[in-house]
Amino acid sequence: MKFCSSCGSADITHSIPKDDNRLRFVCASCEEIFYHNPKMVVGCIAEWQGKILMCKRAIEPRHGKWTLPAGFMENEETVHAAAARETQEEAQAEVANMSLYTIYNLPHISQVYIMFRADLVAGKASPGIESLEVALMDEAEIPWDDLAFPVIRESLLHYFEDRRHGEFTMHYGDIRRLENTELEIKHY
Amino acid sequence: MKFCSSCGSADITHSIPKDDNRLRFVCASCEEIFYHNPKMVVGCIAEWQGKILMCKRAIEPRHGKWTLPAGFMENEETVHAAAARETQEEAQAEVANMSLYTIYNLPHISQVYIMFRADLVAGKASPGIESLEVALMDEAEIPWDDLAFPVIRESLLHYFEDRRHGEFTMHYGDIRRLENTELEIKHY
Repeated sequence: MKFCSSCGSADITHSIPKDDNRLRFVCASCEEIFYHNPKMVVGCIAEWQGKILMCKRAIEPRHGKWTLPAGFMENEETVHAAAARETQEEAQAEVANMSLYTIYNLPHISQVYIMFRADLVAGKASPGIESLEVALMDEAEIPWDDLAFPVIRESLLHYFEDRRHGEFTMHYGDIRRLENTELEIKHY
Repeated sequence: MKFCSSCGSADITHSIPKDDNRLRFVCASCEEIFYHNPKMVVGCIAEWQGKILMCKRAIEPRHGKWTLPAGFMENEETVHAAAARETQEEAQAEVANMSLYTIYNLPHISQVYIMFRADLVAGKASPGIESLEVALMDEAEIPWDDLAFPVIRESLLHYFEDRRHGEFTMHYGDIRRLENTELEIKHY
């Protein structure tokens, strides 16, 4: 942040406001404080006849890698409506019977991933503008070494494990990229 | 948003960028797109010997009204760490044995509320800088007509109902303020 978006001043400080305990961008001219908060990324594990809807990314980051349909939640949405919208946008697919399934903290990138289980309506899907292709995959067909993000791998691992056990339970955890680039994964 | 925070230009448009479908603030000079996303508000229902930790707000909005300790999640936090931090800041209280409990969409104000159940360690609490007072209350003592926000009321109602039934289950729903100012509450 180089300029104040309220008054246009270039006199932006990175300082701790009164009664606060964190560094914020503060305009020294008009005194406005700018807060930056974590973002929610929301999506679906959409199933049709035992197969899961996967999307091959047409955008960076991780162009060409496989993922579940998911994206940034928008203002004035609900979490489930955003997850359904992302599935529609990325795979032109409709979902039904959504259930909250996984919540993962990704604190190193200030994101919270929230995924729903859902039924893929009529098994119909085709690539949206952010996907190169879409596919319905069973567990053996998932390209485990070619997934876009660790959170996608964790969500799918839980899904297939829960399905084998005949019971889906909610999962909450952290996936953290450490400074040595290793992943630290915690389940609560 | 009146000025571009990257280049300082006052030539900010409210327009739909290429490959997007929503209005964004876009700088016509440097072409930067500014995204605004929902915020997470996180907190705790902290219990000690059957009583719940409540805080009387020392800040606006709803100064003087009662609430559960909760506040905006910060960058680089996890949801549970943020909920524990807010409880520490608002009630100088430590929590243990946290369990994810309620998630409420408040789409009219672009917030998602996430509350945890937790044990209040040693029953110790005192007002933080954002609280006028704190109190441990049983169900009959909750000031139902003097609560700060509908989401606090809903979370507490579920809590006491679940406790009566001897089993806590996760709750997910929407609380929406309609244009006629009525509340619409949905549970999924």
